[in-house]
Amino acid sequence: MDAYFDNSASTKVSEKAIDIMLKTMREDYANSSAKHIKGVDAEKYVKDAAETIAKTLKVKKSEIIFTSGGTESNNMALLGTAMAKKRLGKHIIISGIEHPAVYMPATFLAEEGFELTVLPVDKTGRVDLEVLKESIREDTILVSIMYVNNEIGAVEPVDEISKIIKSKNANTLFHVDAIQAYTKLRINPKTQGIDMLSASGHKFHGPKGVGFLYIDGNVKINPIIFGGGHQRGMRSGTLNTTGIAGMGVAAKEAYDEFDDRIEKIKSLKNFIMDELEKIDGAVLNTGRGDNFAPQIISVSFEDIRAEVLLHALEDRGIYVSSGSACSSNHPGISGTLKAVGIREDLLDATIRISLSELNNMDEAKYLIDNLKELLPLLRKFVRK
Amino acid sequence: MDAYFDNSASTKVSEKAIDIMLKTMREDYANSSAKHIKGVDAEKYVKDAAETIAKTLKVKKSEIIFTSGGTESNNMALLGTAMAKKRLGKHIIISGIEHPAVYMPATFLAEEGFELTVLPVDKTGRVDLEVLKESIREDTILVSIMYVNNEIGAVEPVDEISKIIKSKNANTLFHVDAIQAYTKLRINPKTQGIDMLSASGHKFHGPKGVGFLYIDGNVKINPIIFGGGHQRGMRSGTLNTTGIAGMGVAAKEAYDEFDDRIEKIKSLKNFIMDELEKIDGAVLNTGRGDNFAPQIISVSFEDIRAEVLLHALEDRGIYVSSGSACSSNHPGISGTLKAVGIREDLLDATIRISLSELNNMDEAKYLIDNLKELLPLLRKFVRK
Repeated sequence: MDAYFDNSASTKVSEKAIDIMLKTMREDYANSSAKHIKGVDAEKYVKDAAETIAKTLKVKKSEIIFTSGGTESNNMALLGTAMAKKRLGKHIIISGIEHPAVYMPATFLAEEGFELTVLPVDKTGRVDLEVLKESIREDTILVSIMYVNNEIGAVEPVDEISKIIKSKNANTLFHVDAIQAYTKLRINPKTQGIDMLSASGHKFHGPKGVGFLYIDGNVKINPIIFGGGHQRGMRSGTLNTTGIAGMGVAAKEAYDEFDDRIEKIKSLKNFIMDELEKIDGAVLNTGRGDNFAPQIISVSFEDIRAEVLLHALEDRGIYVSSGSACSSNHPGISGTLKAVGIREDLLDATIRISLSELNNMDEAKYLIDNLKELLPLLRKFVRK
Repeated sequence: MDAYFDNSASTKVSEKAIDIMLKTMREDYANSSAKHIKGVDAEKYVKDAAETIAKTLKVKKSEIIFTSGGTESNNMALLGTAMAKKRLGKHIIISGIEHPAVYMPATFLAEEGFELTVLPVDKTGRVDLEVLKESIREDTILVSIMYVNNEIGAVEPVDEISKIIKSKNANTLFHVDAIQAYTKLRINPKTQGIDMLSASGHKFHGPKGVGFLYIDGNVKINPIIFGGGHQRGMRSGTLNTTGIAGMGVAAKEAYDEFDDRIEKIKSLKNFIMDELEKIDGAVLNTGRGDNFAPQIISVSFEDIRAEVLLHALEDRGIYVSSGSACSSNHPGISGTLKAVGIREDLLDATIRISLSELNNMDEAKYLIDNLKELLPLLRKFVRK
């Protein structure tokens, strides 16, 4: 049996998404900027995807900018805001558990003369709202906080964060990295006070190489890639009609089937967590309830190196990640795990089990059975 | 009959490219950064594509950086060089017929305090080498000149340009936008003295949303997108294994079949040009021989508005472009056509016929027959 539990790293592409992608490659392959009818036909895929995605967020389709993925979306939000607002101020706030795609552009800006405040988080990964409140200043141009943490699944209190920001400085923009949240939570930027929101197609059964950045129509940031003026000048480059169409279809499927999918994922999460709690030496870093996303389980096993366990599970056809797999040549030890203060000896003993609705109860049982069998064996051989 | 002559805007995706893309979406969909075997399997597509493309250019595979397309590649070359070298100098040189994906980032840099020199071109679109020679200074950090112009097909004297640059300032980097040249010409950056070279997958029957930037191993520029440190930190973001694999296969096909394809395209170009020369009031902006690319024909028709002709041809199932279709909301009148000094009255009377090896002689004849029939009719009705 194969059991793929690395869905927060990437997902299998939906067959409906593949169908429309094939159409864009075999028939409607023209450049969507072309003035002839084949250009118009190609452009229709982009318009449809924008409309679909806009509907899932209850925003306008003109507020969706297509990008090459979550990393570019996050970079655009941070660097584009910095360029547009640098005359108003140079202070930026992020949380201590942001993904590298947020904290690395933030670090770049810090090197370029911006001032960066990094908010602490509590043991469940939620940002300290008091510190946030104290940190916002007249020259704070941007707060960027993720919706769902990619390593432990913590859900940030986005509504409260937004209220605090706007009450302290109405000009401060609020960007939300929703790469692990989009399609897993219902998101409404207009009522939640989110100015910008990033998402990535391949996290929800769309293709790789495509994502989007929602930008509120009243918000003006700069582009970070310059050229032929596509997407009203906000993101130049021939539109990736294939990827965009695939992502649009995957987004529609996810929100059309939202309740069923989330219920299924939640029941798998609950079962796995119930079973993990019974395992000796297992420490859960993920909680239940609304403060944690339905699809992510972070668990540490005393005296087991995560990478050893990962490969032992792989031998049984079970695929999980150690820490976050989003970062390729990063030091093995995770920023999030440190920030939430898990025990020093568990830092490199932590795996992430991430679910999608394609998983089933047989796979969950297979995972637990194998863990029960492997953990005592690995403890015997892997002494510290 | 349908005859698609807009291949320089975008091409039909090859079935072999589609096959491998399907594999990456249905089976090997893991994140290529994942540490388990499914991650390793996914990474193999990236390695294979890098190796394939490196071979076509006789460079090392570590010198190929994958991007989201030609526009990003060009932006990376310009902005990444500017960031890396700004302490050495702030002078940049481009030609007067660059694509917006080069001249717009160059314009951005000019606004940020860099100095920009724009080289004139002659009537055939080739840059003035004397002016180039005079323009290179001690503080010139970059010269960016396209290989093949996207509107008229002019081939720039890349070897001579490189020699002039290096003889004047060994530290000046030479970037070549090869988006219309890659797979149409044999390119050897090492012997031609090219430091950086941009290409785009969808121009050669690969998918949209993917491209690459060749960067010589001895050249150090900065990344422009920051995050998880993928591609040795040069371009963060989950690798688009699907697009990269598709582009790799398309590149291999193009260079494996290079001679046959180019011979076919050339014979179509020659036939169409022969016939256009016989048409009253037709003015060719493209020449024959090695100074022009095999796939592009730019032709103006006196007293005919290009857009009217474009739509009249579209009614017959023939697809061409007016000026360049790479730029979506650009003013109708082309920079290249002005720069090469074509007659004022022909500026908006110019269409581009762009070929691929999927075109055939029947289509070429169908194009000519329809032009012969339509032009007198349109002249009657479209008086200026």
